[in-house]
Amino acid sequence: MHAFVTGGAGFIGSNLCDRLLAAGHRVTCYDNFSTGFRQFIDGSLAHPSFTLVEGDLLDMSRLTEAMAGADIVFHLAANADVRFGTEHPRRDLEQNTIATFNVLEAMRANGVKRIGFSSTGSIYGEHKVFPTSEDASFPIQTSLYGASKLAGEGMIAAYCEGFGFQAWIFRFVSVLGERYTHGHVFDFYKKLLADPTTLPVLGNGRQRKSYMYVQDCVDAMLLAVDKAADKVNVLNLGQDGYVEVNDSIGWITAHLGLEPRLVYAGGERGWIGDSPFIFLDTTRIRDLGWRPKLTIRDGIVRTLQWLRENQWVLESRQ
Amino acid sequence: MHAFVTGGAGFIGSNLCDRLLAAGHRVTCYDNFSTGFRQFIDGSLAHPSFTLVEGDLLDMSRLTEAMAGADIVFHLAANADVRFGTEHPRRDLEQNTIATFNVLEAMRANGVKRIGFSSTGSIYGEHKVFPTSEDASFPIQTSLYGASKLAGEGMIAAYCEGFGFQAWIFRFVSVLGERYTHGHVFDFYKKLLADPTTLPVLGNGRQRKSYMYVQDCVDAMLLAVDKAADKVNVLNLGQDGYVEVNDSIGWITAHLGLEPRLVYAGGERGWIGDSPFIFLDTTRIRDLGWRPKLTIRDGIVRTLQWLRENQWVLESRQ
Repeated sequence: MHAFVTGGAGFIGSNLCDRLLAAGHRVTCYDNFSTGFRQFIDGSLAHPSFTLVEGDLLDMSRLTEAMAGADIVFHLAANADVRFGTEHPRRDLEQNTIATFNVLEAMRANGVKRIGFSSTGSIYGEHKVFPTSEDASFPIQTSLYGASKLAGEGMIAAYCEGFGFQAWIFRFVSVLGERYTHGHVFDFYKKLLADPTTLPVLGNGRQRKSYMYVQDCVDAMLLAVDKAADKVNVLNLGQDGYVEVNDSIGWITAHLGLEPRLVYAGGERGWIGDSPFIFLDTTRIRDLGWRPKLTIRDGIVRTLQWLRENQWVLESRQ
Repeated sequence: MHAFVTGGAGFIGSNLCDRLLAAGHRVTCYDNFSTGFRQFIDGSLAHPSFTLVEGDLLDMSRLTEAMAGADIVFHLAANADVRFGTEHPRRDLEQNTIATFNVLEAMRANGVKRIGFSSTGSIYGEHKVFPTSEDASFPIQTSLYGASKLAGEGMIAAYCEGFGFQAWIFRFVSVLGERYTHGHVFDFYKKLLADPTTLPVLGNGRQRKSYMYVQDCVDAMLLAVDKAADKVNVLNLGQDGYVEVNDSIGWITAHLGLEPRLVYAGGERGWIGDSPFIFLDTTRIRDLGWRPKLTIRDGIVRTLQWLRENQWVLESRQ
């Protein structure tokens, strides 16, 4: 199989590329290095079945040319910054919605008909039903990021109906692990390095979130593409549980041997559009045989270990 | 109130403009006349409270300037062609998704925070539950048009959360009545004028659809904006019933005094992405006090009468 991975130099993308290569597949990584890192694909670059194309998804001709010969597209490139969406609304439109349209059009031009897509649990907005299942009631969007992923899902499904595509739409909880470069563990660790005595916390620390270890996430994606055979396969990917931000802070500070004073910004939400509770029903992917290997706590600790060993990433990210 | 109506020279838009003017409001109509008609706003142009701005929603600076001073936006401009979506996928992206983003950004630039939006019952795809309610289970899109309206809804809701907007999202069934310029009554009438002996029918004629008379539709929109007070108000607008395409054909041919031979293309769907059954739960808008004045049958006949009196519209539409 020849897989075309957008955002292949990013966090999840580079881990997916590694796994695809290890499984004997050919991989073309398409990345503009806006948030991806060359360091993440250093190993893959030496592999004979790996091709890197540095390009932007808004560059339609480059994208179309690079995709030639692919059997499947994993479209993971995105503006994944949920929190600052309202500071630059055009970014979600361009890098997520329009970029996804371009991927679909490039697929059509190349006769590629299978797509895996990184959507998000944020698409459920502030749902009232937990755990939230894939066919939960029609949600109201609360973030520009979620809205842009909703737009992507909709177009992908319409291409399945209109052009005979087949899709695997993955609604992720927050993913962590090796090569993790943004999110609360990243932020807390960076802040604690700068000042180990005080930790500012967004919201009241009671936000309940679910996390998933990146290798578990990649396991699930590969399994789904192999086993889920509908035209449009929508799958929640996440742990069968959740933790409070305060739990996570406890594990992080214990691991670092710190006892900082916690300064809460207050409020139920960390930022505008933050969902105070994310907990997805993962029955569908579990029914395909998937089981996560790491607990949320172990995933957080593993992430912290990786950040400690790769401090360059802290400095290269604003 | 000063209302800014995109697509104000179109079918629903021009009827809405007339009603807003009659109610004493000021109206700015923004239209690029790609599918709107000057004839539809001839009356309004003479009204002192009416301003026409000829412009495209992709022209951000013109749009932003034209919107200055508005209190509310009714965003009705769209590529409303569901059937031929797969022939030009970029059209739904640009004229619906990106155009809606531009409207939201123009609102933000002008401090306008209230928006009424013409979404669609097609957003439910091929739902399994009838009548389909606003909080039906998360649907799978089956048309590029539905997907683009889903994208619009998502962005609008995210702007409500992120920027304090308030929205009324209207999921219409097919609307008909005076100034109707596309859809099955239009197509059937045009075909029967060309050949009164034979009528080609898309699909098997058993598709079940719901229709609403344009004045009932405008009634509902104005009522909702007045009475529905949530941050994001999603409202199905439609008749409390449905008819078969064959019923409609019977009323049309009887009204015209014709007995054509019906030639069915066959199949459950009229075209790729066609929903064989559309029937929306309208409890929400009815609970606000709305009642339709015309039955589906009367709406179809009224439409046919208008088309007979305005045959110029048949020739000016491909």
